[in-house]
Formats: sequence, C-alpha cells, structure tokens
Amino acid sequence: MGGYGKQFDEYYKAVETALPEYLPREEILQKTVQEAMAYSLLGGGKRIRAVLCLACCRLCGGTLEEAMPFACALEMVHAYSLIHDDLPCMDDDDLRRGKPSCHIQYGEAMAVLAGDGLLTLGFETMLGQYFTGKYPPQRVVKAAAELARAIGTGGMIGGQVIDIEHEGKPITGEELNLLHSLKTGALIRASAKIGCILAGAPDDVVARADQYAKNLGLAFQITDDLLDITATEETLGKPIHSDRDSQKTTYATLYGLEKSRKIVRELVLAADLAIKGSVLDDPFLYQLADRLAQRDR
Amino acid sequence: MGGYGKQFDEYYKAVETALPEYLPREEILQKTVQEAMAYSLLGGGKRIRAVLCLACCRLCGGTLEEAMPFACALEMVHAYSLIHDDLPCMDDDDLRRGKPSCHIQYGEAMAVLAGDGLLTLGFETMLGQYFTGKYPPQRVVKAAAELARAIGTGGMIGGQVIDIEHEGKPITGEELNLLHSLKTGALIRASAKIGCILAGAPDDVVARADQYAKNLGLAFQITDDLLDITATEETLGKPIHSDRDSQKTTYATLYGLEKSRKIVRELVLAADLAIKGSVLDDPFLYQLADRLAQRDR
Repeated sequence: MGGYGKQFDEYYKAVETALPEYLPREEILQKTVQEAMAYSLLGGGKRIRAVLCLACCRLCGGTLEEAMPFACALEMVHAYSLIHDDLPCMDDDDLRRGKPSCHIQYGEAMAVLAGDGLLTLGFETMLGQYFTGKYPPQRVVKAAAELARAIGTGGMIGGQVIDIEHEGKPITGEELNLLHSLKTGALIRASAKIGCILAGAPDDVVARADQYAKNLGLAFQITDDLLDITATEETLGKPIHSDRDSQKTTYATLYGLEKSRKIVRELVLAADLAIKGSVLDDPFLYQLADRLAQRDR
Repeated sequence: MGGYGKQFDEYYKAVETALPEYLPREEILQKTVQEAMAYSLLGGGKRIRAVLCLACCRLCGGTLEEAMPFACALEMVHAYSLIHDDLPCMDDDDLRRGKPSCHIQYGEAMAVLAGDGLLTLGFETMLGQYFTGKYPPQRVVKAAAELARAIGTGGMIGGQVIDIEHEGKPITGEELNLLHSLKTGALIRASAKIGCILAGAPDDVVARADQYAKNLGLAFQITDDLLDITATEETLGKPIHSDRDSQKTTYATLYGLEKSRKIVRELVLAADLAIKGSVLDDPFLYQLADRLAQRDR
C-alpha cells in the first residue's frame, strides 16, 4: 500500500500545485467572481477525476505534464457542478468540503457566475492547449468533445435533473443507477478516457478505461451514500444524514448497509476485470478502486 | 435594401430551421430540462450572432452548411446567458422575448440547469463537428477556443459581474464601455471571427471581422439602451424603463439621447471602415450594422 499512497500523493500534490496556475489573472473589475472561483476550486477535494486522468495518461505512455491542464480542467468542471448543486434552488447546502458553500460566502448571483466561469474555464483550459503546439489538434478536440458529452443533459446535468425531480418521491433501483451513472459517473468516465486519449491510446484501451471508471464511479457514489449514514459531520466536512433528512432514496435506504457494501465489492471486481491484461493493468488503478470503495469503514 | 432584407431572411430562416435539429433527443427522465432549453432557445430572438457567423463564413469563401452548427452553437450560448441573467438573484426579469422568462415558466432550479445545458450543448455542438470528418480539426478547435475565451471571466461572464456589482452605483463612461464590450461585445466578436476561422480565412481578415463586430456590438448595445427609453413594452417584448427603474447607468442616462445617437453613428462608420477593401467588404455587412443601429427610430 506504500507504493499506492506515495503515487497518489505525487499526483495529488502535482494537481494542487498546478490548479492555481490555470485560474485567470485578476482584473480589477471582475475580481469577485475570480475569487469565488478560486474559493471553490482550491478549497480541498479528493481530486479523483484529475488523478484518474493523470494515471490513465501515464499508463498509456503519456506524461504527467501532458495530462495536467486537462486534469485541472476536469476539476474545474467538477467544482462548477458542486457550486450549482449547492444553490438554494437546488440542494440548498450551506456547507461544502468543511467550509461555507460558495453562495453562502459570495452570495447567490456570484455563485451562479462562478459556476458558469469554472465550466467555461474548463473548456478554455483544454482548448487553449492547442495553441501550445504540444498536442496533435485531434487529441485536444477529442478530449474536449468527450468532456462536453459527459456533462450535458445526456450526462451530468441530466443526472442532476433526475435527482431534483425525484426528491421526496420514490425511485427504483434502476432509476437510481441511471441517476448516479449520469450525475457522477459520466464525468469520472470522461476523466479516465481523456487521460487515454491524450496519450494517443487505441480505442479498445479507451473503452477499457471507460468500463473501469464506470464501475469505480458507481462504487464511489454508493460509498458516498453509505458515508452519509456512517460518518460524523466532522470527518465528512458536510452535513450528515442530509439524504435521510431530505427523504432521498439512496442505495442505503433501498438495499440496506450490507447489501450495498456487497454491491460495492462486486463493482470493484468489475472495475479490476475491465483493465486486466491491458496496458492499464497496474496496481495503482486496482488500489485506487479499492480505496475509494472503502471510505465508509 | 431589398437585397439586404432578402439575404437576412435567408440566414434567419435557415437558422430557425436548423436550431431544433441540434437540441438533444428527448430521454424520458431528463425531459424537463430539455423542454426548458428548447423554450428559451427557440423562443424567438434576432439571431444576430448566428447571422454574423454565417455571413462572415460565406464572405470568406465558406458555405452556409459549414457554418450552421457553429452559428447554432453561438445562439445556444447566447440563450444560456439570457436565462442566467434573468434569474431572481441576477437581473430578476420576468419577461424575455415577449414570454415569461425561463425561471418563471420552469422554476429556478430548472432554469439554472437549462442555462448550464445550453452552454454545454454549445461546446458539444461545435466540438462534435470534428467527428463528421468535414472540417480540419484545427478549425474546430480554434473556433471552440474562440468561443470559450469570449464567454469566460475575461469576456461575457466578466461583463455580467461588472453589471451586477455596479447596480445602483455610479459608473464612468469608460467602465460602461468595458461592461458592454465584455457582456455583449465579446460573443458578437467571436461570432464574426468564428465564421472567418471556419472558412480558413487568414489572420488579418479575422482581425478585420473582429474590429467590425466590436464596433457593431457596441452600437447594438447603445441602441438597446435607447430602446429602453423610446420603445413601448409591446414592441420590445420585455419591460421598458427597466434600466431607469433599477437606477442603472446607461448611455442614455450618461450622455443623453442625442449624444448617444451620435456615438452610434460613429461606431457604425468605424465598423464599415474595418471591413473596407477586404473580402468582407460587402453591402450585407454594411447594412447589417446600419439596421442594428437604427432600431430605436
């Protein structure tokens, strides 16, 4: 596990160092929105999406440096989704990553704009790499197109719509799977795929990364649901039992703790199976899936 | 003027026909957000950005068909900006293009998501053209990068931030120019530039289109301010005197009606001058600038 931890730390620290570099330089009149963007982007987070992108790129023969702007862009888009999800008209969450949510800190208008800004900056950061001359244009456009597809109404936004429309209403296991596969799964899958695409990996490797991330993403989300029950507010950095309080159907309420944990174990095995025997067959990815699925212990 | 009107109608109708084709196909669980997106995107509008893109592409030797998905993407991004601007936490406008605003019709949560959805779909529509094999990848990535740059915190979003932060406060003429050049100017400039980029125009032509659109955009915005005073609610399709009621500084309040109209005429001349003697030197673009600047008569 020492190798895994060291490797994860390397990726994590590299991301934390790089992220501020991609934020826009302050211009006096638009300062507030840029502060709000930095507040939410740099305010901690597990950086799973960035790490997945970096690891997949490296395993496919690319470098950390090549993948970094894209990994940072993925974290920007993730931060945007959290800001908008937390808004009073959405999930109305006052706390995020142990700090006041963006709209609590900067007001609602600035939070909407900071989210819009981070979404846009994600695309700008990816597409801007074309002008460095360091990437074949095809890879830049494929990576950015992958992102756009993953976060539209057929992906992340669609998941949030289903989530909001089912609040307080019964939801089936199938619908819950669809909700999660869109709301969190799509961006996690895109993160892995983009890493491969940047390294010029062939389609079958991209497809394996996709399958790996699909299973990992769902395992991750179910574990999140379980954490809402088993964790304390302090360790979680956001209100616990928020799902139960809002009468949200989760894996925990639908299947119970034990059955949910069994599903998580099966998903981790499926993730492992997807990369077995490929260029992605690496202890780091196995242990990443394992660790993400064990956060509720 | 007959030639201009006929030409504008051709572009306008082509855009109105094409726009629905780029909306996502309905999937049952995410239906509401897609309806809200269609409601705001297809609910009328002058289609200036799309027409500019189509006209510039054609004048640079490209075709209507080539430019169309990009022109539609520009309208999506414009529609997103209107939805978010109208939100209660922003300008709080109940009426848009003669109909209830998106959040009045679909609720605040869905309006935020419909805006997010249209922004994302704009990028998805542009970037997706790569996979048709009909465009050199460089042009697709340059066009999408141009869009991203124009609508970030250094562009459209930055303009909205300045606008919101100056509500009820004094603003100088210089700040007002900056506000408009970011809030509406940047996307209008990008529309013209993207048209040229798609046709493979050289940099100096792109720069001329940019200058033309910069002047046209400001003339357009000042005329909008004047319309707020001179128009009736019926002809405008949104509440009049909303600027005065919210104590907003506009060109009209800053310079008065006559001086503002003089500035508009000068801007139209500057727009004309920018394209004179180039491949963009065409009666259509001259008359487009002229017409847009005369809407308050």
